[in-house]
Amino acid sequence: MEGEPIMDLIREGDDVLLYLDERRTYLVRVGEEVSFHTHKGYFQLGELVGKEFGAPIKSSLGATFYGFKPLMRDYVLKTRRRTQIMYPKDMGLLVLLTGISLGSRVVEAGTGSGALTSILANFVKPNGRVYSYEIREEFLKDAGANLRRAGLFDYVELKLKDITEGIDEECVDAVVLDLAVPWLVIPHAYRSLKGSGVLASFSPTIEQVMKTVEALREHPFADVETVELLMRRMNIGENRTRPETLMIGHTGYITTARKILRQDGT
Amino acid sequence: MEGEPIMDLIREGDDVLLYLDERRTYLVRVGEEVSFHTHKGYFQLGELVGKEFGAPIKSSLGATFYGFKPLMRDYVLKTRRRTQIMYPKDMGLLVLLTGISLGSRVVEAGTGSGALTSILANFVKPNGRVYSYEIREEFLKDAGANLRRAGLFDYVELKLKDITEGIDEECVDAVVLDLAVPWLVIPHAYRSLKGSGVLASFSPTIEQVMKTVEALREHPFADVETVELLMRRMNIGENRTRPETLMIGHTGYITTARKILRQDGT
Amino acid sequence: MEGEPIMDLIREGDDVLLYLDERRTYLVRVGEEVSFHTHKGYFQLGELVGKEFGAPIKSSLGATFYGFKPLMRDYVLKTRRRTQIMYPKDMGLLVLLTGISLGSRVVEAGTGSGALTSILANFVKPNGRVYSYEIREEFLKDAGANLRRAGLFDYVELKLKDITEGIDEECVDAVVLDLAVPWLVIPHAYRSLKGSGVLASFSPTIEQVMKTVEALREHPFADVETVELLMRRMNIGENRTRPETLMIGHTGYITTARKILRQDGT
Amino acid sequence: MEGEPIMDLIREGDDVLLYLDERRTYLVRVGEEVSFHTHKGYFQLGELVGKEFGAPIKSSLGATFYGFKPLMRDYVLKTRRRTQIMYPKDMGLLVLLTGISLGSRVVEAGTGSGALTSILANFVKPNGRVYSYEIREEFLKDAGANLRRAGLFDYVELKLKDITEGIDEECVDAVVLDLAVPWLVIPHAYRSLKGSGVLASFSPTIEQVMKTVEALREHPFADVETVELLMRRMNIGENRTRPETLMIGHTGYITTARKILRQDGT
Repeated sequence: MEGEPIMDLIREGDDVLLYLDERRTYLVRVGEEVSFHTHKGYFQLGELVGKEFGAPIKSSLGATFYGFKPLMRDYVLKTRRRTQIMYPKDMGLLVLLTGISLGSRVVEAGTGSGALTSILANFVKPNGRVYSYEIREEFLKDAGANLRRAGLFDYVELKLKDITEGIDEECVDAVVLDLAVPWLVIPHAYRSLKGSGVLASFSPTIEQVMKTVEALREHPFADVETVELLMRRMNIGENRTRPETLMIGHTGYITTARKILRQDGT
Repeated sequence: MEGEPIMDLIREGDDVLLYLDERRTYLVRVGEEVSFHTHKGYFQLGELVGKEFGAPIKSSLGATFYGFKPLMRDYVLKTRRRTQIMYPKDMGLLVLLTGISLGSRVVEAGTGSGALTSILANFVKPNGRVYSYEIREEFLKDAGANLRRAGLFDYVELKLKDITEGIDEECVDAVVLDLAVPWLVIPHAYRSLKGSGVLASFSPTIEQVMKTVEALREHPFADVETVELLMRRMNIGENRTRPETLMIGHTGYITTARKILRQDGT
Repeated sequence: MEGEPIMDLIREGDDVLLYLDERRTYLVRVGEEVSFHTHKGYFQLGELVGKEFGAPIKSSLGATFYGFKPLMRDYVLKTRRRTQIMYPKDMGLLVLLTGISLGSRVVEAGTGSGALTSILANFVKPNGRVYSYEIREEFLKDAGANLRRAGLFDYVELKLKDITEGIDEECVDAVVLDLAVPWLVIPHAYRSLKGSGVLASFSPTIEQVMKTVEALREHPFADVETVELLMRRMNIGENRTRPETLMIGHTGYITTARKILRQDGT
Repeated sequence: MEGEPIMDLIREGDDVLLYLDERRTYLVRVGEEVSFHTHKGYFQLGELVGKEFGAPIKSSLGATFYGFKPLMRDYVLKTRRRTQIMYPKDMGLLVLLTGISLGSRVVEAGTGSGALTSILANFVKPNGRVYSYEIREEFLKDAGANLRRAGLFDYVELKLKDITEGIDEECVDAVVLDLAVPWLVIPHAYRSLKGSGVLASFSPTIEQVMKTVEALREHPFADVETVELLMRRMNIGENRTRPETLMIGHTGYITTARKILRQDGT
């Protein structure tokens, strides 16, 4: 059954990404917030209601903003971060490498601000589920709020638990780790995963990677691989085309592995 | 409604990715193919039936293979390619940047071997749709076969049409281009997209990028960005940890933009 | 005749690189400057006289500075820059690719602040020479001062001339270009170079590279190559080993070519 | 005293780099070798005598070769290699970072095939010296032959000695390490270096870097830095401009440090 080609109109209660230029975007909720103020002037958010997403709106000082429909990546980039940063490039590759999609059951730790949780929930919904472990209660609160805002709370189970002490779920499709001591989770991840299920771990330092890979090799995992992604932004324009001068040189390494069964089937 | 934690058993008719080591994997269909022969010996594929995915199987020469459940990325990498190569790293970022997910309506061109089509279909299913344009009939046939094999044919409309002459669909969420002349498609993409919808174009050469960005700037698009991803594989192991000597230095640039509406609402 | 193994003692009139930490270094001239003041306290530069290079000196506030003997790269990094930046990584490769060394005769343009000029002069001395073209008089003054400070002025001929109008020197070993319009210099460079001599051009944008390579192909040059270097700094330390988060993503492309003779020997 | 602008004519006994195209170059010695045979035909090397470097020569099958004057980098790339590879990009940066130039006294280990030795010798000549340590006698023989061929033997002292047991030279300007266990050499390097002298170590693996940096921190060294260089080749040409598909993803890390003196002047 195919989705209908409907024009998206902005309604009361909708999130809108106000776009001024590449570096200045603002995530607002129409209705909840009444007016939008910036050094480029102000306008009433109610003016957006009934317009199509993508429509322009003029501020009191004549600046033009565009009202974009927020994408998952916008929520991620606008998420209040208390933790280390995984970027869209890393999340995209991680989703592809784990095969996470509609209906997947995924264990994640730690929840952090819920940025990766949102991305995962968005791909497993409506009938999959993300079980997300976190030991810091204040992070779970933030994450819960962020997931509610993005409309993804129903697909996630937030767990105030230390994943290094064990995983409750069985037969999951993937285990995704973004925490300081991933190697301590490997034995639990093995028991939690389905046969052929994928473990993925994101770590900024090479020592974390070394310990994690060593732990993976001590358990029945195969296809163990570690990669990192470098993203270069390009400046494109007549006689000024070149990679940008400053770039993010490193976010983290992604290690993946697939669970195999022992010869005796255990 | 949550998915059940079911153990996945291999059944007659299932695709299985036979894994010997990192460089030697084989995609087979149990039942359709009866026995598997390699220089490492042979075995009957029927022996896999009833085992859990991830189970080992011994060849006549004593080599151990593991029967993995194929992920979308495995289908992509096993796809017979006649065309230039977009890698999982690029596909993952493209999915994140376009916001393609459950229910999205996406226009794609060209279909090629259907590798990207499969990835897109896998994320928009079951109620979204991919409209995929291709002018070379033999490619469409390949792509159709590949999509059927991956169980994704029902979510795709393959179109033997030149997308530079126009796009039939309206109000789509995203337009994804991987063809030689993306700049010729920009006016059509603009009309086809919803307000706030995302255009993404993948191109190997900088001249293609320059022309595409120029065309985007001549139409009402905002948030125009071009990036490229470099992926480094790491060798991890005691006293031999280092990036791999050889790497893929370039696949292509990804350009994205969002449709804005003109001041007069057209 | 071999150089004597002499201990280097700091004398009146010597340049010293005061090193506090990786990010805080100061180039001073002992004698010319009397005391050194910083927010970490002050000390008399005269105290350094008679000490070995590398010796520590305590400031009034107890901070320890080390008095390093400045290397060419220190002069380069301390040079007042008015122009775009070529980094040591680029200079090092450029010297290797051009084969510039003792006795080489090299044409350079533009002089800019004289940073690359210093590096080249340092390698061609004492019996080689750098002919450096610049059209902006104030730059030539700066460059002259910088060269004098580094003790390299005698190996350079600074020329207030537009190199796009011609090169005076003949039979040079290398022509090194770091200016906005390198393609306009190619015909002159061809005439100026010895047979088998090397042209090298550094350009930030891809359009500059494209025009330069096109010009090189229209003249008798062979072995035309363009490369770029990315330098990653590493953080090394127990449980925190990783590439640095921020890196310089691009400085410029280096294009090299060797002069060949026409079949008729012209 | 300035070098004369002399045209370089090929003489009996000269090395010539025969250039067919970017991938096919051949280093020959005119006179020693009489004729040159390739699948593109043959010619008499004597025909080159008296021609200018850069001159074309036709083979019996009509292919055109050019007779280039070999640069140091050509000798390096043509050197018979038994060992791991340091590339021109690494050598260039290493020379810049160590400040090695005319008159420098440099300790090097291991000699290997003498590739880096040649580069160093070329920059320290005529009055500097490279003391090169190697424990494998057959390597020293190769290196000696390579240095003689490049005309640099007189500036090098080849030493059949284990540098991890000590360094004979004192007050040297730089110590350059390219061996498996650089951390074992740090105490000896400290004693051998002048105050403010530079140590540089090239290592392929991160474990080597970690141990070396740890050793440097346990001795009086400052300004400890580790970097790596990635070199991308570009394809330049109308509508095909792009980085090359395959690249060398890693050669090694370069660690540098400067000797400081202890507070008590030892």
